[in-house]
Amino acid sequence: MFEKKFSESPASKLLGELAKTPVDLTIPGILSEERIRRYSSSQAGLTLSYATERVNDRVLSALADLAEERGLHDAMAAMQRGEIVNYIDHFPCESRAALHTATRGWVGEYTLEGEAAVLAEKARAEAQRLEAFLDKIQGRFTTIVQIGIGGSELGPKSLYYALQGYCPSDKNVYFLSNIDPDHVAGICEEIECERTLVVVVSKSGTTLETSVNEEILATYFAHHGLRVEDHFIAVTCEGSPMDNERYLEVFHIWDSIGGRYSSTSMVGGVVLSFAYGYEVFLEILKGAAAMDRVALERPMHDNLPMLSAMLGIWNRNFLHYPTAVIVPYTTSLAYFPAHLQQCAMESNGKSILQTGEEADIVTSPILWGEIGTNSQHSFFQYLHQGSDIVAVEFIGFLHTQREWDPIVGGCTSSQKLFANMLAQSLALAMGKRSTNRNKNFSGNRPSSLLVGEQLTPHSLGALLAFYEHKIVFQGFCWGINPFDQEGVALGKELANQILLLMQGISSQEEFPEAWAMLELFNIKK
Amino acid sequence: MFEKKFSESPASKLLGELAKTPVDLTIPGILSEERIRRYSSSQAGLTLSYATERVNDRVLSALADLAEERGLHDAMAAMQRGEIVNYIDHFPCESRAALHTATRGWVGEYTLEGEAAVLAEKARAEAQRLEAFLDKIQGRFTTIVQIGIGGSELGPKSLYYALQGYCPSDKNVYFLSNIDPDHVAGICEEIECERTLVVVVSKSGTTLETSVNEEILATYFAHHGLRVEDHFIAVTCEGSPMDNERYLEVFHIWDSIGGRYSSTSMVGGVVLSFAYGYEVFLEILKGAAAMDRVALERPMHDNLPMLSAMLGIWNRNFLHYPTAVIVPYTTSLAYFPAHLQQCAMESNGKSILQTGEEADIVTSPILWGEIGTNSQHSFFQYLHQGSDIVAVEFIGFLHTQREWDPIVGGCTSSQKLFANMLAQSLALAMGKRSTNRNKNFSGNRPSSLLVGEQLTPHSLGALLAFYEHKIVFQGFCWGINPFDQEGVALGKELANQILLLMQGISSQEEFPEAWAMLELFNIKK
Repeated sequence: MFEKKFSESPASKLLGELAKTPVDLTIPGILSEERIRRYSSSQAGLTLSYATERVNDRVLSALADLAEERGLHDAMAAMQRGEIVNYIDHFPCESRAALHTATRGWVGEYTLEGEAAVLAEKARAEAQRLEAFLDKIQGRFTTIVQIGIGGSELGPKSLYYALQGYCPSDKNVYFLSNIDPDHVAGICEEIECERTLVVVVSKSGTTLETSVNEEILATYFAHHGLRVEDHFIAVTCEGSPMDNERYLEVFHIWDSIGGRYSSTSMVGGVVLSFAYGYEVFLEILKGAAAMDRVALERPMHDNLPMLSAMLGIWNRNFLHYPTAVIVPYTTSLAYFPAHLQQCAMESNGKSILQTGEEADIVTSPILWGEIGTNSQHSFFQYLHQGSDIVAVEFIGFLHTQREWDPIVGGCTSSQKLFANMLAQSLALAMGKRSTNRNKNFSGNRPSSLLVGEQLTPHSLGALLAFYEHKIVFQGFCWGINPFDQEGVALGKELANQILLLMQGISSQEEFPEAWAMLELFNIKK
Repeated sequence: MFEKKFSESPASKLLGELAKTPVDLTIPGILSEERIRRYSSSQAGLTLSYATERVNDRVLSALADLAEERGLHDAMAAMQRGEIVNYIDHFPCESRAALHTATRGWVGEYTLEGEAAVLAEKARAEAQRLEAFLDKIQGRFTTIVQIGIGGSELGPKSLYYALQGYCPSDKNVYFLSNIDPDHVAGICEEIECERTLVVVVSKSGTTLETSVNEEILATYFAHHGLRVEDHFIAVTCEGSPMDNERYLEVFHIWDSIGGRYSSTSMVGGVVLSFAYGYEVFLEILKGAAAMDRVALERPMHDNLPMLSAMLGIWNRNFLHYPTAVIVPYTTSLAYFPAHLQQCAMESNGKSILQTGEEADIVTSPILWGEIGTNSQHSFFQYLHQGSDIVAVEFIGFLHTQREWDPIVGGCTSSQKLFANMLAQSLALAMGKRSTNRNKNFSGNRPSSLLVGEQLTPHSLGALLAFYEHKIVFQGFCWGINPFDQEGVALGKELANQILLLMQGISSQEEFPEAWAMLELFNIKK
């Protein structure tokens, strides 16, 4: 795919040189009006401001060169067309397309071709089936429980919570994921089964946690005289073990939709449409589709996800910051960092190139985060004065979701919120000298700001797609495959072996290390 | 305090040597029954298993030497006695004790002396006032809203959620923290004011978010014809601006109780006692007090928090892992990682030694986390195959909180949960060779397991104190002051300046960088 490795590309070498003397953000006047205006771009309703990153024109030009050398535009086009992008050379692998953009491709005014067009039509058909299904069950259910874990929970849950302040809903929504029996018990205590719809979400139809929780909930419903065929629906791949007639309804996804990229498929569609209405789900799709076009068509300086991806690579591979933190300044995005953490770290937490060789560079940073202003009272001490520099990604909105914005002390709460976000970004960048070493701020701690007018279904869709594409662009740039997850296999395998020990089906010799652990904790075997 | 710097101590030099060839956990048989038994310790109802850390007897012996050279036992004793441990030499500083252990010191069967005894008596008096207050309001309120941010939210919230599965409660509990107006609006939509008690928690009595949210809620209550003096209580320092008679009741904390260490004071006591009863709060205190004694009295190999602290220092300073991740295998601890993140990163995210010199070593790692098994479907890909090694701290319990533990497929859900935790620990350590490079697991990724019988109020208290002391021991070992937070001052200062710009009170010249940002986002000034 590439002529050279990442580390050998000319732009990469230049960036390595430039990183020896990155711009000093503590110089008085450096954060000029011109810099702040030029180092920003607005697309699809979002503005990315990166004046507080440690970049200058030479760095940005080299990053654009690196993006071209690594073929990011071509790779994005190939992905959105439906070419096989999920593969590793020389080794057996999933070898398939990654067509999450097609799940919203049908809402736009552009035309798709090839595999993308085929899948977009299937996605449209599922969405229409969903609309009809919701009409049919109108008034029957007050509550939905989505059973699913990982990609079948994190994206939909974060989107659901993100809109609670914007969209009126008279529905109760629960997400059941963990195998922990106290999780399912807690939900059973709260729901009224007769009025509850259960949506079981598993792409493979074989996820341990999901099928166990489904069975537990089905038994619980049976105790209340209720049947799966009246209360349970499924979202799964066509042809999976879950794709059968015991459910009230089955909605489909497809192999080429990765779990962590599936929020805009029926994985998110059912619960979001149930809670907020089908039209709200469509608006999310439209916002995501708008950002899909930005990722596909715009040059780096106006391609928000590519720009943010390359700034992240500058911070990770050239300035050597081991982590990045997401700090949304809105309570509504409380679950969004956890979704992005999965999306980024499961996609790019890898050490093998797509060529099958060992990576000679570091790939994904560790991604973590919490909302602001809360985190100012938590880990911001570290961000300002801790040992390792953390690249901060602020997310903020100018207006509240509800109309209510009370004035206290001469300014509104949303003004206070936004002022705090700006203040943190500037404080991290500019620092402040003090003769009291304990009150000294060294500055030069980089951040970017992603800002929208208001967190609406449309801007939420754009925000979701922004991060999906940012992550995929980074995977492409590092030359890894962001669409598989072979690293989760071994743990599952060993867990099954330990369960066999616990049940007395296998014996000490078969797994002596686990046997010894069970002894230590006095677990009967 | 110390004769030598951390980096110059003999034990530290030896550890640097030993770190060049850490034990190889992938060697067949290395995780022997003997190693697993010996590399564990049980205290105060918790067992720490560290056979899957990259340590051997020589490393452990050198870590114990380092702990002694750095005076950890003496420093813990000084802290628990109430000596001034919160200070920085040569610079103006808070210069006071850190006596959070005294907030539970009065429940034990041992006697405290000096300042600790004085504070423990005050804490006892507050607790008794709380008990009387709860009697007085018996039956009046169904709901509590705790207004507080940072240390006034994260600890109490994580403890409240931790016990939902164990303790029956007929109360509704909300935590209001963010300045985001959608946060307070969302809570107002849900509560019935007439039956709601509001507890306003701010140590200083001047926290921006807390006083603004208090004013908003007071106005909202006034619209319902309800008065602060009937519905609002306060938890604050004696003599703070909030310590006055407009409240229904005021409970006190003291200067020597740091916010992030205040969960066992009235900061956590009011809400936990309201929700679960005073006796449950007492049990939490007893569990914490038991761990306080372990931290004070036991040699390193049986001093769970010190042992874990030193293993963390081995991972951070000698094996150079930039982050550590907390993974509790129980949904009940969903908010616990966020509390620990604050506690660790605000305490030890610093670059100045207590001597006033610049630190020549790295201090706190970045601490992050999510519950298992959920995170197995999220960032565990990264833990197994990502670029940077992450030190994992598993937390697990043998039994569910509720009696319910359904059997599916021949084993209970709690067996599946525990088996998964063990499996991940062993998979990370042992790895697995594969000729398919994409399915290769290099192993040697370290973890520890902290295991209790059941998550009860008592074990929760012990768990809380375990981490408080672990964090403090690390601060002592690095030679920093874990009790102040000067790094949060600059952001607050700049936020106030930006609000003056937004209100038209100050002008462009006074903060041109912020002015340019406001221009960029079309914010009227």
